[in-house]
Amino acid sequence: MKTDLFETDHEVFRTSVRGFVERHAVPKMEKWDTDRAVDRETWLAAGKQGLLGLSVPEEFGGAGELDYRYRVVIQEEIARVGASALQSGFSTNDDIVLNYLLRHANEEQRKRWLPGFVDGSIIGAIAMTEPGAGSDLRAITTTATRSGDDWIINGSKTFITSGVLCDVVIVFARTDDPGGYSLFLVEDGTPGFRRGRKLDKMGLAAQDTAEQFFDDVRVPAGNLLGELGAGFTYLMQSLPLERLGIAIAAQTSAEAVFDWTKSYVNQRLAFGKRIIDMQGPGFMLAELQTAIDVNRAYIDRCVRAFNAGELSAVDAAKAKFWSTELQGRVTDAGVQMHGGYGYMMEYPVAKAFIDARVQRIYGGTNEIMKEIIRRDLVETS
Amino acid sequence: MKTDLFETDHEVFRTSVRGFVERHAVPKMEKWDTDRAVDRETWLAAGKQGLLGLSVPEEFGGAGELDYRYRVVIQEEIARVGASALQSGFSTNDDIVLNYLLRHANEEQRKRWLPGFVDGSIIGAIAMTEPGAGSDLRAITTTATRSGDDWIINGSKTFITSGVLCDVVIVFARTDDPGGYSLFLVEDGTPGFRRGRKLDKMGLAAQDTAEQFFDDVRVPAGNLLGELGAGFTYLMQSLPLERLGIAIAAQTSAEAVFDWTKSYVNQRLAFGKRIIDMQGPGFMLAELQTAIDVNRAYIDRCVRAFNAGELSAVDAAKAKFWSTELQGRVTDAGVQMHGGYGYMMEYPVAKAFIDARVQRIYGGTNEIMKEIIRRDLVETS
Amino acid sequence: MKTDLFETDHEVFRTSVRGFVERHAVPKMEKWDTDRAVDRETWLAAGKQGLLGLSVPEEFGGAGELDYRYRVVIQEEIARVGASALQSGFSTNDDIVLNYLLRHANEEQRKRWLPGFVDGSIIGAIAMTEPGAGSDLRAITTTATRSGDDWIINGSKTFITSGVLCDVVIVFARTDDPGGYSLFLVEDGTPGFRRGRKLDKMGLAAQDTAEQFFDDVRVPAGNLLGELGAGFTYLMQSLPLERLGIAIAAQTSAEAVFDWTKSYVNQRLAFGKRIIDMQGPGFMLAELQTAIDVNRAYIDRCVRAFNAGELSAVDAAKAKFWSTELQGRVTDAGVQMHGGYGYMMEYPVAKAFIDARVQRIYGGTNEIMKEIIRRDLVETS
Amino acid sequence: MKTDLFETDHEVFRTSVRGFVERHAVPKMEKWDTDRAVDRETWLAAGKQGLLGLSVPEEFGGAGELDYRYRVVIQEEIARVGASALQSGFSTNDDIVLNYLLRHANEEQRKRWLPGFVDGSIIGAIAMTEPGAGSDLRAITTTATRSGDDWIINGSKTFITSGVLCDVVIVFARTDDPGGYSLFLVEDGTPGFRRGRKLDKMGLAAQDTAEQFFDDVRVPAGNLLGELGAGFTYLMQSLPLERLGIAIAAQTSAEAVFDWTKSYVNQRLAFGKRIIDMQGPGFMLAELQTAIDVNRAYIDRCVRAFNAGELSAVDAAKAKFWSTELQGRVTDAGVQMHGGYGYMMEYPVAKAFIDARVQRIYGGTNEIMKEIIRRDLVETS
Repeated sequence: MKTDLFETDHEVFRTSVRGFVERHAVPKMEKWDTDRAVDRETWLAAGKQGLLGLSVPEEFGGAGELDYRYRVVIQEEIARVGASALQSGFSTNDDIVLNYLLRHANEEQRKRWLPGFVDGSIIGAIAMTEPGAGSDLRAITTTATRSGDDWIINGSKTFITSGVLCDVVIVFARTDDPGGYSLFLVEDGTPGFRRGRKLDKMGLAAQDTAEQFFDDVRVPAGNLLGELGAGFTYLMQSLPLERLGIAIAAQTSAEAVFDWTKSYVNQRLAFGKRIIDMQGPGFMLAELQTAIDVNRAYIDRCVRAFNAGELSAVDAAKAKFWSTELQGRVTDAGVQMHGGYGYMMEYPVAKAFIDARVQRIYGGTNEIMKEIIRRDLVETS
Repeated sequence: MKTDLFETDHEVFRTSVRGFVERHAVPKMEKWDTDRAVDRETWLAAGKQGLLGLSVPEEFGGAGELDYRYRVVIQEEIARVGASALQSGFSTNDDIVLNYLLRHANEEQRKRWLPGFVDGSIIGAIAMTEPGAGSDLRAITTTATRSGDDWIINGSKTFITSGVLCDVVIVFARTDDPGGYSLFLVEDGTPGFRRGRKLDKMGLAAQDTAEQFFDDVRVPAGNLLGELGAGFTYLMQSLPLERLGIAIAAQTSAEAVFDWTKSYVNQRLAFGKRIIDMQGPGFMLAELQTAIDVNRAYIDRCVRAFNAGELSAVDAAKAKFWSTELQGRVTDAGVQMHGGYGYMMEYPVAKAFIDARVQRIYGGTNEIMKEIIRRDLVETS
Repeated sequence: MKTDLFETDHEVFRTSVRGFVERHAVPKMEKWDTDRAVDRETWLAAGKQGLLGLSVPEEFGGAGELDYRYRVVIQEEIARVGASALQSGFSTNDDIVLNYLLRHANEEQRKRWLPGFVDGSIIGAIAMTEPGAGSDLRAITTTATRSGDDWIINGSKTFITSGVLCDVVIVFARTDDPGGYSLFLVEDGTPGFRRGRKLDKMGLAAQDTAEQFFDDVRVPAGNLLGELGAGFTYLMQSLPLERLGIAIAAQTSAEAVFDWTKSYVNQRLAFGKRIIDMQGPGFMLAELQTAIDVNRAYIDRCVRAFNAGELSAVDAAKAKFWSTELQGRVTDAGVQMHGGYGYMMEYPVAKAFIDARVQRIYGGTNEIMKEIIRRDLVETS
Repeated sequence: MKTDLFETDHEVFRTSVRGFVERHAVPKMEKWDTDRAVDRETWLAAGKQGLLGLSVPEEFGGAGELDYRYRVVIQEEIARVGASALQSGFSTNDDIVLNYLLRHANEEQRKRWLPGFVDGSIIGAIAMTEPGAGSDLRAITTTATRSGDDWIINGSKTFITSGVLCDVVIVFARTDDPGGYSLFLVEDGTPGFRRGRKLDKMGLAAQDTAEQFFDDVRVPAGNLLGELGAGFTYLMQSLPLERLGIAIAAQTSAEAVFDWTKSYVNQRLAFGKRIIDMQGPGFMLAELQTAIDVNRAYIDRCVRAFNAGELSAVDAAKAKFWSTELQGRVTDAGVQMHGGYGYMMEYPVAKAFIDARVQRIYGGTNEIMKEIIRRDLVETS
């Protein structure tokens, strides 16, 4: 059953997004992969067309649009052409970094940063993970130490989406207070802040995922984001939206890959029949189509809950876990149905398969998602 | 995420249904299993309490309530106590037989039968399957032959829910006309109409599933249901609701069994820990809880679509397939989590497991569902 | 690929076993189900034909045959006709109880009991599980207390195979010594030793599984089996053979059920084709046939390892886990492929399905098996 | 349970192979990936060390070693370091191309080619697949037409392993005779024979898979391999060994990846525990270890059957299907267990994952394998 999530305004917006994608993403995707980065012109064009920072209040140049369904439209249209790195960059900016700013930034910070999230001139990142601390964020060793009015940050971070291009990075660091962890804004060009190499990943080639190093990086007190010691709490609060974003990326990619595959099996002949006419592969595709429809209903329910301010961390974990597993199965089946061509990078299904693989890992591994869900099943007496 | 399907009126109705179930089902379920039938008093009590024939128009004594969510409430409350045979009997009456009458019965037939579907005095059945024709209904050999103003029915049917107790049965038979198949109402007591033995099933002990034999059964022309030759078309039209009914039974049973299991693993100790505190079984339960929540969103979407007159045959097939597979996995896991006790019939989970097994088979096997879904993927050019 | 486990002598023995099964099991299986017990005449007939206690030394009337492949032949032939309760009873006697006696009984005990395990006059049982202690055997509360030259046993046990018919039961009880647990032989008729009701199980109807109660049961010191305090160690030592026995029962049952199903799908028509001619169900059956062949190779490897005295506890756990999961899938698919008939108890596949369900639970649940295997993956540094 | 396939001589040989792999593969693998080809020096070194063409008769410089277990040793040692492209190249040479020559080449052809398969100076390829004919080989359109004493070959082929480097390629082409298809040897440098670009694959970077074009390629009659018209039959005969080779590559890779993963989870800490100490991931790993052990027993059985000349096409199809599915699951889980690092190409598990993906596709897709197995289940009456 098709989604019933959207209304006329969303469909109007979709036309605009689709135009952007056709003009800016489709012709450049191959180059992005070669360059291993999405170019800044694309960000600026997206900003110009009103696709970024939708939720930024009007006073800071945004649309003040809190209906998350517009973000879903963007995700769908990007997924339709398989531009995973663009998806990942935009989602990091809008669903994660901007979300922190909107929730916790003070007036000065808002003025400083929000307009750039609307016009595409600012690319943001968040530096949480460390070589020795992935899912277990309390284990980080990066520190921020008070020094007069400033903070001195030391440590190294990894797996940072937009890690090379970012203009500003939110750094999660230990601070010496009861909360134990705080967030800091570190700007490009701050002395001691250094980007590592672009990481050589299995997929998501055009995403400039990188390490970052902080050697005695001095930032003014005004770069503390929100309350001192509230860092861990803020992370926990931001996770539902981050995970919903991943879940939507997964679902929309699964839908797109299924459509490509459906077209292929409706054309490709083997033994004188179209593949779709054979019940063996046909049953498998029927199962996946069902799984996609079923999960879409859940995703739509989550989007509505988020709009209503009611999406819980546990429900977001379920969405992230289930949707990315589904994406894994659909992209795997898509490859298989394409036969030898499914293994060739010129076929989008090959790219979708390797791009998808990280989705079960980042944003909290699916094992972490299961643990969150398990704990919710524990009754206290 | 919990369902958002219901409104206040449904919850008021739920209280009534729950009272009925506690008073009439819970104390008698064991006896029903021994008797291998649900007693008629229960049907009458249900009718008295307004739980049957909700969609019957007021002129025939019903509530004229077309909102299917009330049926969902009934399914949920019956599932909560595991009264599968009651579920199956009620669903056959209200989702299947009554549906045929409301759609196709003429005024006389409506007067004759509809009131009994409201007060519980009439138990209906439908005789489709034959020993040599299950999923492939066009292969039936039962015939209805014109003889003056009457029809003479000959043939044998099997796997008929309420086959022993039914007061009226809709018989699917071949007729000599372009449509090739028609439906006939055969009443209890008609000469030549004979019930076979109650079938000895793996589960659903209290459901009087049976064979029926028709030896020169003569019924008047007025017992033809709907148009001559329209029988196969009517079957096809009725399938979405029948399958939605099975899907809801599956989903609500899965929810109930999961709840019993959740309680058990929150109490049962092994190696000094509660089972839910162990991550191995815990992850498995987390997956199932997620699958249940995800599918619930789809089921709710289907119910809304049905209420709007928009549930397609393909979407109903998806619901039936996916929900009954889920029920299979949840009841299987429920048994496993109960350890040795899960194998003991005194534990409801054991009963739920064997009762569930037929759900993937009847109403069209899940292989048929996949074939329906596969065909929907075929593009015609 | 077919098994290459057997040699000519085993095939000769198979002919004898098959004759026994055809003469004694096939005609009586239905009655066994009704009686909820296998009759003693069958045990005696099996003993007469040399099918019991093969490994008993010749001086005690046995064949002294340590080649376990003869037991595999017996399992295969019983599985071929679906006589699960007989399988379970024989396996408990020969793979479990007799194994304890052969390993730990003193000369007097051997003389007293071994001949009866050969001629079928003695049915043995082992009482380990308690209502509050299943997988976690150290949690039992049954005690054996020294009283002069005797031991006084108190406690209650459950899920005891052959619990009603057994002539002798090995009781696992706490004793006040460093080992903490010991084994005792309790004979039928000992004052204070009482059988509970036959448990009403989902399947294995003909197996007289029961509770047993021990109220101040006084047994002489000579009824201690093996060393005082060695009970837990003995249990651990016996588990590989017990689990191998279950694994073989699972594999042979899966093979038999697959054969029945293969015959059915080669005959049953739907939509004008045999089911096996349709690729949808056909692929599923192809997968199961492969899984069966693959696992058979592992089972055969385990049998050879057992014969060589080299079957480890971990490898036996793998065999038990994998084989019973396979049996679960094959019996489930077998039911599905039989359509409505698969749900009818007159079809052996229905019985095989519910009989199989306990295999993933007893002998240590499959969760315990996974835990054993997991621990074997832990490296100590 | 560990394999019992090998004897002392194989272990001696293993030492030699391991030395080769450590000296020649490990230091060069990264360069091979960059160059997108394995260098010829490696082939020559392998030849020098006696790792190639083992089954070539002594008169042509080989060892005349027909025991396939030596090939298994080579596969294991290459898999241990993850050198998939080397594995694929060697296997194509020894399990496929050489196999055709040994079975069908005439004396002159044997003299011409066999020595080079031993000393590593000849890299062979086979050109079967075409853009419009993958699994369905009868659909090829490449033709060989008689012209005087020569044959003129026209057509294009794709997905050819060693397609760029190969010195000789066996071309599968239509011929105008009752058999309809024949095989021809085409040498590097023959006019009209052109290599296409190296295909840009998802994985197996170092394997020079390519297209090949044949434009009026003239070869002498002596380049016909075997009988005219026997081409399709020869393909069918060669498939069991080709598929066994893939199955062994899959099993040995699964074993290796599992070992790397096991090491990782025994060291990596999260939340203060090693990952292996957590039951959630631990159970998953326990399942995979079991699946690996179980399949190993089947693979070993297949190897023994092959050595005895008894490996059937159906059993080889089972091995290929089951082993490559297992490899898929193990490499996927390996990535997941490595968390973010599993997505980084510097970790061998990432490479193993993308290299593995083609295994379910080539050598006949796993859907073709299932179809072969399904047909074997069909009974003819």
